[in-house]
Amino acid sequence: MIGGGQGAFIGGVHRIAARLDNRYELVAGALSSNAEKALASGRELGLADDRCYASFEEMAERERARDDGIEVVAIVTPNHMHFGPARTFLNAGFHVICDKPVTTTLDEARELSGIIEKSGQVFVLTHNYTGYPMIRQMREMVATGAIGKLRHVQVEYVQDWLTEAAESTGAKGSEWRTDPLRSGAGGSIGDIGTHAFNLAAFVTGETPDRLLADLTSFVPGRKLDDSANILMRYASGAKGILWASQVAVGNENTVTLRVYGDEAGLEWSHATLNQMSYTPYGKATRTITRNGAGGGAAAARVSRVPAGHPEGYLEGFATIYREAADAIIAARTGEKPASDVIYPGIREGIAGLAFIDAAVKSNAASSWENLKL
Amino acid sequence: MIGGGQGAFIGGVHRIAARLDNRYELVAGALSSNAEKALASGRELGLADDRCYASFEEMAERERARDDGIEVVAIVTPNHMHFGPARTFLNAGFHVICDKPVTTTLDEARELSGIIEKSGQVFVLTHNYTGYPMIRQMREMVATGAIGKLRHVQVEYVQDWLTEAAESTGAKGSEWRTDPLRSGAGGSIGDIGTHAFNLAAFVTGETPDRLLADLTSFVPGRKLDDSANILMRYASGAKGILWASQVAVGNENTVTLRVYGDEAGLEWSHATLNQMSYTPYGKATRTITRNGAGGGAAAARVSRVPAGHPEGYLEGFATIYREAADAIIAARTGEKPASDVIYPGIREGIAGLAFIDAAVKSNAASSWENLKL
Amino acid sequence: MIGGGQGAFIGGVHRIAARLDNRYELVAGALSSNAEKALASGRELGLADDRCYASFEEMAERERARDDGIEVVAIVTPNHMHFGPARTFLNAGFHVICDKPVTTTLDEARELSGIIEKSGQVFVLTHNYTGYPMIRQMREMVATGAIGKLRHVQVEYVQDWLTEAAESTGAKGSEWRTDPLRSGAGGSIGDIGTHAFNLAAFVTGETPDRLLADLTSFVPGRKLDDSANILMRYASGAKGILWASQVAVGNENTVTLRVYGDEAGLEWSHATLNQMSYTPYGKATRTITRNGAGGGAAAARVSRVPAGHPEGYLEGFATIYREAADAIIAARTGEKPASDVIYPGIREGIAGLAFIDAAVKSNAASSWENLKL
Amino acid sequence: MIGGGQGAFIGGVHRIAARLDNRYELVAGALSSNAEKALASGRELGLADDRCYASFEEMAERERARDDGIEVVAIVTPNHMHFGPARTFLNAGFHVICDKPVTTTLDEARELSGIIEKSGQVFVLTHNYTGYPMIRQMREMVATGAIGKLRHVQVEYVQDWLTEAAESTGAKGSEWRTDPLRSGAGGSIGDIGTHAFNLAAFVTGETPDRLLADLTSFVPGRKLDDSANILMRYASGAKGILWASQVAVGNENTVTLRVYGDEAGLEWSHATLNQMSYTPYGKATRTITRNGAGGGAAAARVSRVPAGHPEGYLEGFATIYREAADAIIAARTGEKPASDVIYPGIREGIAGLAFIDAAVKSNAASSWENLKL
Repeated sequence: MIGGGQGAFIGGVHRIAARLDNRYELVAGALSSNAEKALASGRELGLADDRCYASFEEMAERERARDDGIEVVAIVTPNHMHFGPARTFLNAGFHVICDKPVTTTLDEARELSGIIEKSGQVFVLTHNYTGYPMIRQMREMVATGAIGKLRHVQVEYVQDWLTEAAESTGAKGSEWRTDPLRSGAGGSIGDIGTHAFNLAAFVTGETPDRLLADLTSFVPGRKLDDSANILMRYASGAKGILWASQVAVGNENTVTLRVYGDEAGLEWSHATLNQMSYTPYGKATRTITRNGAGGGAAAARVSRVPAGHPEGYLEGFATIYREAADAIIAARTGEKPASDVIYPGIREGIAGLAFIDAAVKSNAASSWENLKL
Repeated sequence: MIGGGQGAFIGGVHRIAARLDNRYELVAGALSSNAEKALASGRELGLADDRCYASFEEMAERERARDDGIEVVAIVTPNHMHFGPARTFLNAGFHVICDKPVTTTLDEARELSGIIEKSGQVFVLTHNYTGYPMIRQMREMVATGAIGKLRHVQVEYVQDWLTEAAESTGAKGSEWRTDPLRSGAGGSIGDIGTHAFNLAAFVTGETPDRLLADLTSFVPGRKLDDSANILMRYASGAKGILWASQVAVGNENTVTLRVYGDEAGLEWSHATLNQMSYTPYGKATRTITRNGAGGGAAAARVSRVPAGHPEGYLEGFATIYREAADAIIAARTGEKPASDVIYPGIREGIAGLAFIDAAVKSNAASSWENLKL
Repeated sequence: MIGGGQGAFIGGVHRIAARLDNRYELVAGALSSNAEKALASGRELGLADDRCYASFEEMAERERARDDGIEVVAIVTPNHMHFGPARTFLNAGFHVICDKPVTTTLDEARELSGIIEKSGQVFVLTHNYTGYPMIRQMREMVATGAIGKLRHVQVEYVQDWLTEAAESTGAKGSEWRTDPLRSGAGGSIGDIGTHAFNLAAFVTGETPDRLLADLTSFVPGRKLDDSANILMRYASGAKGILWASQVAVGNENTVTLRVYGDEAGLEWSHATLNQMSYTPYGKATRTITRNGAGGGAAAARVSRVPAGHPEGYLEGFATIYREAADAIIAARTGEKPASDVIYPGIREGIAGLAFIDAAVKSNAASSWENLKL
Repeated sequence: MIGGGQGAFIGGVHRIAARLDNRYELVAGALSSNAEKALASGRELGLADDRCYASFEEMAERERARDDGIEVVAIVTPNHMHFGPARTFLNAGFHVICDKPVTTTLDEARELSGIIEKSGQVFVLTHNYTGYPMIRQMREMVATGAIGKLRHVQVEYVQDWLTEAAESTGAKGSEWRTDPLRSGAGGSIGDIGTHAFNLAAFVTGETPDRLLADLTSFVPGRKLDDSANILMRYASGAKGILWASQVAVGNENTVTLRVYGDEAGLEWSHATLNQMSYTPYGKATRTITRNGAGGGAAAARVSRVPAGHPEGYLEGFATIYREAADAIIAARTGEKPASDVIYPGIREGIAGLAFIDAAVKSNAASSWENLKL
């Protein structure tokens, strides 16, 4: 693991996600760029001292030299620290699981893509919301024609934790997230907007080709957007609205996805993530539940407990890890991964950055912009 | 009453709304332009035969001549038939209650405005959602500073009854609503988008000065938009998103309004119209109920039954009628209406048409357009 | 109208309910036993002075003598004042609409029943919740076999307005409701438990034949129960739980009804009264809405506005009045009322008193008691 | 681990729960009483062959003899197979984590209690719902006086998976659950009623001293109750209703707990387990969220991810395992466990059996029965 030392939030999440299905063992890490903290963090997690590295370059080199070296690395550093380790470990022949966004620029992402395509290594981007069973259910329903032809996508990802200038008071995670040098060109669009964008694309199977964005930094002095109002147009004629905000007071971590076709509508909300609603036009709305009546194979495959026993954030995240493990084993054996291994990868990473790029450009020019996928 | 003959939906709603608080008596009508139907409809409603008119012009003239003539007229015809009767009755000295949108063009609305300003007659536009107690509650909270400085408005009005080409099969109300000659330049933006726009303005006390609209007619052959994705910008720096659709399958008549300031957020949904949520930043969300704990005077004033006893659509509509009656009595006596009589009038009608105009223009030009208020 | 003078809550509700569908005209009243208040109240409501009576006996006599006398009287006095006027007006040949419970003792109710049976007069008990469209929908579904054989009924009616000793501080309506002399033997079971009991019977078509009750007066010094926990057994083998409370803090006026058969379950809650859920065993839950997809004729018949436009308490109440009007016209013409006129009457009144009686007896004896229907 | 071989549901849940916080290592098991299946199951889980035992007696003996023997055993067999292994392992000096109910009779449970009291060994009963953060929140609020004096407890645990005679068609888990020899005297009251009973006691800090139960087997031929309607009385004067059912169609696994005092009410539902509502009398209802505003230390201590990121069933279960680990370490070092280690143990196991006993007896005698705690 790269990053995720003491005090880091997302590193701990990755570790639980990896552990949940018993498919990984954590044996080495460059958990901090501070050697002392790296060692202390590693010991806390049960790593041998000689596998607590103070730099990812050293780790890549030394782990490659070991007979019992790691097989895959998880990168959980702040955004601007994804590209370096990813490139290094890919070049050293390791599989990579990387937090999103994949890099801070499109060029970097395309460079990684080149390496991955040539080598066939597994590269997994933890767009964790795609691991939710009911999101899988929606995707399966759209793919099998349940809604007919797609017309409208309504997706929201809103929070309120940046309502005030948290970055100036040193609140955890807020500092680098609001700093263009470490986050990239996108604030809320990068941090959560890309999740919303990815989620909509994952479920509908369509990616918008144009967008118009109105980005705002509501908090005085903030350099990056904390709110993004975005209209989307799809090549198919479908339309969409994406709203991301980190200043919508009263929303802890609200994610909603609603997709409408000419035959049916589907609605899902994070607050009740174990169910979704399905309305065939002119019929009563059905509530489809995880592992329950009306649910399909795609959701059941990534469920762990029976219907009515809620699964949550960690389980969704763990599903990404589980599918990464399946893919790595397939790569190891030379077999193709199971057709239903559908984790997000470098392609989704590039799409996310193209989304950020187009949004920033559109906002500056007040015009519809193409996504350069 | 003008319009609202046999088979008409909204005419019946107006009559119940007028009756509910016992402030009106229906005594005359031009309920249909078909003389026979006008008479039959009038008899059904208990009108004297000689006050069942076949034309509104005749009605205006004859009622003015009577000692016991009407005092106020309700216009409940399709959109393109509002202007004529409104002008006629205003010119004849009557007060007018008119369904929205006030007219089909801004010029017509401005002409009415001129008459009203000069004469001091009461002109009420039945933007009925503003009559809901919890909408009054939100307005009062924003006005008294509960949310601080406004940042974001999220408003939706979505239905699904035009998902298929209902107009070609003659479904009630769908034909004229999708015909530019009778509806005006706006389809869904006119029919329901103006309600959403009005609601947001009513609650926040702010009207956007620019918007960018993406209008779509999803149903093949449809001439007017059935879906409208709109970004809004306010002079104050606030932003907003308005979504109107008549093809969002699974939504019978979904209206939601969420407003966020730098100190709190407020959320309301039509499906649970007797409550709203209020989250002061950093505190637990409160559910404020109609007439319940935490509710204010503005909501209580327009409530009829105790907390926990649901009020609905007709009661909200009736409140507009009740406040119109208060205003008419005030006009009759020369007194000012009570300061809390806050029915929507010609100003709101003009704003709605300016909204439609700007949206249509923006959609054509793919650009941000000013609202000409 | 008997009772319902200035300051009374339920009288106003009855008047709106009567007015809403334009089927009644209020022309006379004994609105208060205080002559002065009776006159003032009557004038406020537009009654002629000579039809503002200070006693119901006088009103019955004088109205009978008039050519234009009333046809039906509404009794909206406190519980202990129902029997007297009801008997008097029935004996005088008038139809009667009476607030519930019908009387304070079973004997009185049986006496009224005798009069009604002989005369064929219309007697309507305003168990208003049975007027809700979705309650009609549930009843229709049960009657037509949607749930199969009934197994379990779960019904709740809970409030919190008597959490503290409101009666000692003179809060409106709390004084007589907690006084055995004026309320009868039941506190919360009489005031709201009978509503719950009636609602369950109305929907399921079955009345329990035995019950076991645990009644409590939580507030020190209160003479009647403010909370009732009741188990029910049906002759068919079905079981049930009824919970009524006026001290359940956080519940303004919560009514929920859930019925389960061997083939399906139905659930309804007052807070979302325009919808209900229907789960056929092994299938996804359907949300059926008022006037919406999946709704039946029984609900549509008592709906006034389209799906998605919420109806509420007053509309439900008005439906009882509308059906009373239908029944009165049928009685007038000698025709049978339409088969779908299903207002609650004296039979339901007797059942409610039998329910209170059995509950009080069961509570005292800690035993299962039969309902004497 | 005892039990939990291939195909078993709850064994897998225990293993994930143990793994989630990285506090346990699974090294030995008597996963099945069939030697072949025991071995195959163990290999699948990575156990060494010589630690895949075919009987729990052998496992206890051999593990005790090893230097690297187990420290704690998890018993996840059907109900009637809890007592034997529990006694054996306790007597052999191991700590025990046991699925509920602890045994099938009170005498057995009391025997275990005697061993535990003398030895000071850790015995944890996996009443997993007590691990939910918002349940901890409710408990903390009640304990610190938020609701005042307890008045009413309303607790439900309802499912629908036994609506039809699943046991005769061999559906997994249904056979032994409906067999008195393997389940004990309680059907639904044992399987889920004890969870409800335990949850209410955990949160309120009070255990009823009397109950009246009406048990039913709705499915023809079923030997144990599949539905339980229970009234409860507390020594403090509080009352309660407990409803458990496995035939309530439409309920996958509905658990709700509502507690009311003379100063406030608290409500929680499994479907939205990351939040609860809190209504101080006369004030607006607050929604308190896991790790969010208004939440206390007790909930935060057992949360793993930030507010707005849903936790679920497995996390709650894992909390029981985590607190068991804390207690075992405390026992190892001779220190007292942290005061906030509040896992359910033998005392809760005895209470659950006393609850079943009293319910069965009350049902037979139609009388209020004392709980023999």
